[in-house]
Parts: sequence; C-alpha cells; structure tokens
Amino acid sequence: MEKKRSKAERIAIITKKLVENPSEIHTLQQFSEMFHCAKSTLSEDIDGIGRLFEEEGLGKVVSLPGAAGGIYYSPVLTPSQVQEVQEDICRRLNEYSRVIPGGYVYMNDIFYTPRILQSMARCIVTRFCNEQVDYVVTIETKGVPLAMVIAELLNKPIAVVRKSARLTEGTTMQMNYVTGSNRNIHTMALPIKSIRRGSRVLLVDDFMKAGGTAKGIMDLMKEFDTTVVGVAVVMATREPEKKLINDYYCLVEFQSVDEEKETIQIIPKKM
Amino acid sequence: MEKKRSKAERIAIITKKLVENPSEIHTLQQFSEMFHCAKSTLSEDIDGIGRLFEEEGLGKVVSLPGAAGGIYYSPVLTPSQVQEVQEDICRRLNEYSRVIPGGYVYMNDIFYTPRILQSMARCIVTRFCNEQVDYVVTIETKGVPLAMVIAELLNKPIAVVRKSARLTEGTTMQMNYVTGSNRNIHTMALPIKSIRRGSRVLLVDDFMKAGGTAKGIMDLMKEFDTTVVGVAVVMATREPEKKLINDYYCLVEFQSVDEEKETIQIIPKKM
Repeated sequence: MEKKRSKAERIAIITKKLVENPSEIHTLQQFSEMFHCAKSTLSEDIDGIGRLFEEEGLGKVVSLPGAAGGIYYSPVLTPSQVQEVQEDICRRLNEYSRVIPGGYVYMNDIFYTPRILQSMARCIVTRFCNEQVDYVVTIETKGVPLAMVIAELLNKPIAVVRKSARLTEGTTMQMNYVTGSNRNIHTMALPIKSIRRGSRVLLVDDFMKAGGTAKGIMDLMKEFDTTVVGVAVVMATREPEKKLINDYYCLVEFQSVDEEKETIQIIPKKM
Repeated sequence: MEKKRSKAERIAIITKKLVENPSEIHTLQQFSEMFHCAKSTLSEDIDGIGRLFEEEGLGKVVSLPGAAGGIYYSPVLTPSQVQEVQEDICRRLNEYSRVIPGGYVYMNDIFYTPRILQSMARCIVTRFCNEQVDYVVTIETKGVPLAMVIAELLNKPIAVVRKSARLTEGTTMQMNYVTGSNRNIHTMALPIKSIRRGSRVLLVDDFMKAGGTAKGIMDLMKEFDTTVVGVAVVMATREPEKKLINDYYCLVEFQSVDEEKETIQIIPKKM
C-alpha cells in the first residue's frame, strides 16, 4: 500500500478482507505491514468493526489469542435470523406449482440460487462453526453446491462421494450400501486422496428420507478414520420418524403433498 | 438501525453489504433508510469505497444510473492478478505427486478448495461479467462447485446438466451426444424448469479435451432457446488443437505428462 490510509479507509479494507474470506485468520501483523500503522491503532479499528457487526446482527469478528492468534469473520446468524431463513424456505417450497409428476416437490432452484443457498448454508454454519470441521462431505449431485457454500464459509475443502469410481480420481474406496426407503443396493466411492486420515468431517445433503445414504456415508467415513461431527440436511421427511441415524440437524420438515386439495405441507423444524 | 452511525461505521456496513453480495444492486434509498442519513452523504461514502477498491486492486464498485439504478460490487481482477492466478494453478498442478494410475493428473483438490476455486472463478467472472449472464450452466459433477462460485459472484442461478433424468426433477429434456475424444455415445439431461426460455447462459467446466461435451451442452442449449455467451474451462489440453467448438476461454493448458522424467507440463494459457 503506497498511500497513508485514513481510519475510514482502513476500516473499509479490513472489513472487505474479513468478509470476503470468512473463517480465514488474519493477523494484526499483516494489517500493520499493509497500512504501515501501529498494531494498537488496528486493534481499535478491528474492535470497532466487531462491535458494530455484533450490534447489527451481521455475524461475528472472532479473536484468537496467543502466538498463532489473529482474527476472523464468522458469518453466524442470530436465532431469529435462522428462524427467518426457515420460514422463507417453507414459503418458497409450499407453492403448489412445484409439484411434479409422481407427487414430488421440485426444489432445484433453492439449491441452485446463490443467495437462497447462502442463507441455508449460514444456518448450518451457525450450528457447526465451533466443531473444528476439516472437510465438508456430500454425495453427488444436488448436495454439492450446498456443501461448497458451507465450505466457503468455513474455509475448508469439500469431499464429494460419487456413485462410482472415476479414472481421473485415482485409487478409490468403494462401498455398497442399502437405501433406507426402498431397500435398493447402491454404490458409493470416494478417492483415497480426498480426505486426510484423522480428520473431522461434517456431512451435508439437500434431503433425507430414511437416512440410508447418510448412514452409508458415515460407514464410509469410518474407513477414512474420520470423526463425523454432524449430519446436516435442508429438508427431512416426517416419515419414517425413526431414521437410520440417531442425530441430525435439519432446517425444514416435509410432511405431505395433498394432490386433491393442492397443498404442500413443509414446516420449519423446531431447533 | 437504532443508533446514529459514524462515517467509519457506515463505511464498514456498506462495504460488508457490497462485498458479501457481489453483483447485487443496492440503492442509495435503501442505505439512506438504513442510516437515517442524506443520500448525498452516502453517495460520498460510496464514492470513497469505490476509489479505494480501484486504487488497491480490490475489484470495482459499479454505479448504474437511472430510476432502476444503484450500485454493486464487481469482484473483477486486474490483468496481472489474473496472470498470478494462472501461475499459481500451474505451480500447484505441476507437482509430479499428482500423477495417478493411467497417467492422469489428480485435480480434485483445486476444484474442491474454496479459496483456490474462488481465484479461478474470479478470472472467469472478470472475462464474462459484462455479458448479462442469466444462468451459469455446467455438467455434473466436478464442474458444479466452480459453477456455483461463479454464480455467487455474478448473483445468478446455476443449471446442472445431468447424465440421466431424475424422478425428482420433473419433465426433462434429454439428448444423446458423442464425446470428441473417444467417440462414445453419452446422454445428457436437463429439467425443463431449470432455464427460462430466451436466457443468456455461460457454460463452465473444469476440463476440456476435444470439446465434445461442451459442444453437446451448446446443442442442448439451443433446445432451451438460449444464447450461449461463452464457454469457460479451467484447463484445456493442447491436443487436439482443433476443438469441436470454435471459441472458449481457458486458464491453463495441459501439454504433457512425462512418466520417465517425472514431469508435468501445464502452462498458463495466453489470453
């Protein structure tokens, strides 16, 4: 940086660096070299940004103490913001024009539109941001954009379980599993290189019915010596009430489609 | 907003809103209501942020004149920043430990790690941000995270071409096509609901060899009455020099893997 920057300018640049790189640690040293300015001054600037974000419900600026310390932006939501996201998704999904042949509800758009996806991702990040996640794991295809947005917010890579091994992905761990709802046998495959042994992983997917796929990925994760810190889905069905996995986080619950009355019942899941 | 905010505080909040929502239009009216403050004051704040970003190579703040006008943040790179990204990708990919059985180069990590993906996405956005893109289109699976990150930066939805039709995606347009490299017949499918007729689309993928897949998607796009504004890939192979499509944007060129000398030759593509 050539020019001496004013307080407002420093704050604009620091805010930009923090917000554009969520969960990435920045040091006072780094800003002090950038602005040729005392750490105490920068510390004040950053405290001001943190206080402001907190007061306005704009996420958090987190300080890590110690030698490896620094600050990072954590894009967490308040409980009432999470509730607003849940209600917004229900409002969008309960439009009857979404029902497609077979009585399914068309949902691609909510998983493929950046701002909607981001709001859902933030709810999940709010729940799991303190779990020291190393990888966000999903299964192809519809869960991939959601996993990627969560990964961006946590600043961690994703790993994508595929339905068969690919030549271009090297040696692969492959596993057969039974889906929970119709008891079909499927295959899942994950390249050996995609996850470091001993990692902590968060599983995410768009949708869960009986939980057979989630259970399958959890079994596969054991082969990679990982700890599954949680399973998060956007929507789970009310039935079957007993899923194949014990614990999961979900935003909305699918209850029913009534083709006669032309209504869909999707409701916010109680947290 | 309850409290009266200082100039530095306004600038922090405006910067955050702009940077966190790239390509999303904000109006002076909206900020003026938020801060209970004159539009002329905000106009000055925003000009200051724009000038600062420009001077520091931090992207652009674009003003749209007129009644439907407003401002938005465009995360474009300078030519030298694009070149740095190209060189960084080559440096990462030319590590011989990436070579996997069959002489392929393992590349999942660069497509699955947020910050690397974002830097590549920004290069592509820099090239296509003025093309009025309505959708970012890709084919499953490895191109999906890249497409999503580009879509976030352009604030437009993605559409994902699949290798077969799905029950949960409704009526689907399905097409057979021949891959360019080994002349195999494959199928691609895209739900009717995923793209509005008359849209402008940007096709993106991780990799291109002969261009058969890209050509296939272009043919499929005709059935959706769309205009393809461009095709962008991260890597294209030097051979065959003549691709099945005439024009494409690519960041790096794959030349060869020498298994005897244990070297990979991937070089920045001249723009």
